[in-house]
Amino acid sequence: MMSRIGVLLSGCGVNDGSEIHEAVLAMLALDEAGAERLCIAPDKAQRDVVNHLTGQPAGESRNVLVEAARIARGQIRDLATVTAAEIDGIILPGGFGAAKNLCDFALAGADTAVDPGVEKLLLELQAAGKPIGAICIAPALLARVFGSLGARVTIGNDAGVARVLESFGARHVECPVDEIVVDERLKLVTTPAYMLGPGLKEIRAGIDKLVRRIVALAG
Amino acid sequence: MMSRIGVLLSGCGVNDGSEIHEAVLAMLALDEAGAERLCIAPDKAQRDVVNHLTGQPAGESRNVLVEAARIARGQIRDLATVTAAEIDGIILPGGFGAAKNLCDFALAGADTAVDPGVEKLLLELQAAGKPIGAICIAPALLARVFGSLGARVTIGNDAGVARVLESFGARHVECPVDEIVVDERLKLVTTPAYMLGPGLKEIRAGIDKLVRRIVALAG
Repeated sequence: MMSRIGVLLSGCGVNDGSEIHEAVLAMLALDEAGAERLCIAPDKAQRDVVNHLTGQPAGESRNVLVEAARIARGQIRDLATVTAAEIDGIILPGGFGAAKNLCDFALAGADTAVDPGVEKLLLELQAAGKPIGAICIAPALLARVFGSLGARVTIGNDAGVARVLESFGARHVECPVDEIVVDERLKLVTTPAYMLGPGLKEIRAGIDKLVRRIVALAG
Repeated sequence: MMSRIGVLLSGCGVNDGSEIHEAVLAMLALDEAGAERLCIAPDKAQRDVVNHLTGQPAGESRNVLVEAARIARGQIRDLATVTAAEIDGIILPGGFGAAKNLCDFALAGADTAVDPGVEKLLLELQAAGKPIGAICIAPALLARVFGSLGARVTIGNDAGVARVLESFGARHVECPVDEIVVDERLKLVTTPAYMLGPGLKEIRAGIDKLVRRIVALAG
């Protein structure tokens, strides 16, 4: 039977939502791996809206679910309606949205709080033995949720960020852009993607490995 | 020497801008083909803003260049500043933005007018013998600009849309999602992508062929 893997989006654009390239490459790899995808996002206001041309705040308000629907071509579900029983695993693309809208890591660092709906779904998936993947900065969220269990994750090789993840109890493992770190015990798979760059070809290699491992663990 | 290929964006999201998957897959294929990319968009208001969750008008105003910068991760140039001499070819992803913001095909059909800046750049590229690729509905714009020269293009197999393209003087050629139509004389390359779907894996095949042909023609 075809696995059904959630893709948890956080908006649409690297500076205030999901990193678009990472999200699309994860969806491509799921399609190529023969897995079904279920795009999911929380129905709430974004932390902020950034003008991606200037990098400056835009002084607007946008909704995470409504903007994430752009990446999902309208095929997306409100996180509040999704249960762990509906999916065989989940993947969190990166982008600042993962660290502003799904949790507040980008602002709070060591004091990070995770969106309650996100935390609930991830804990339910983990309890059900279902795999969880995270790309780029999104592993910081996994470190916050699963740090007390000694989760092993990567965000590449940024020593400052790694120290904050370790303050959550997680173990950070350095990793190149075209590779993954797998916590076999907790079924967590992470890859650095645009934490390291440099381009689409390189991040695709790591994301492809992550997706194939998630689908294998979900089977 | 590495070719430098323009990617002409029209916003960010299938219903009012560039189709995100098509744009990212074109950028991925350029990276894999060893070509440099130059993302470009016109600095002007979008025709409309559509809520991609509901499909309904959002009653907002957004700027084509600013929103396209989300797909380009901020690395993008205002169309008004780009000359044909700077690039070796160009690719237009689809999405309603190509038919609302780069031209008004989605509203005007047989009476389509093309954005003057877009038309100028395309005519300059054609005069310089540089290749032009278009994906999904974007070939309608090429049909409008190059129809009087008897351009051969595809938008898949939609007979109604094809008839409008032929009213411009273009010749429409039916084409499956994983293939391309090449007008060798005018150096135009087109592929149906999400005009036919059904998914990322299938549209990737056609977009990949299109990009490799554009890079070959640009060399």
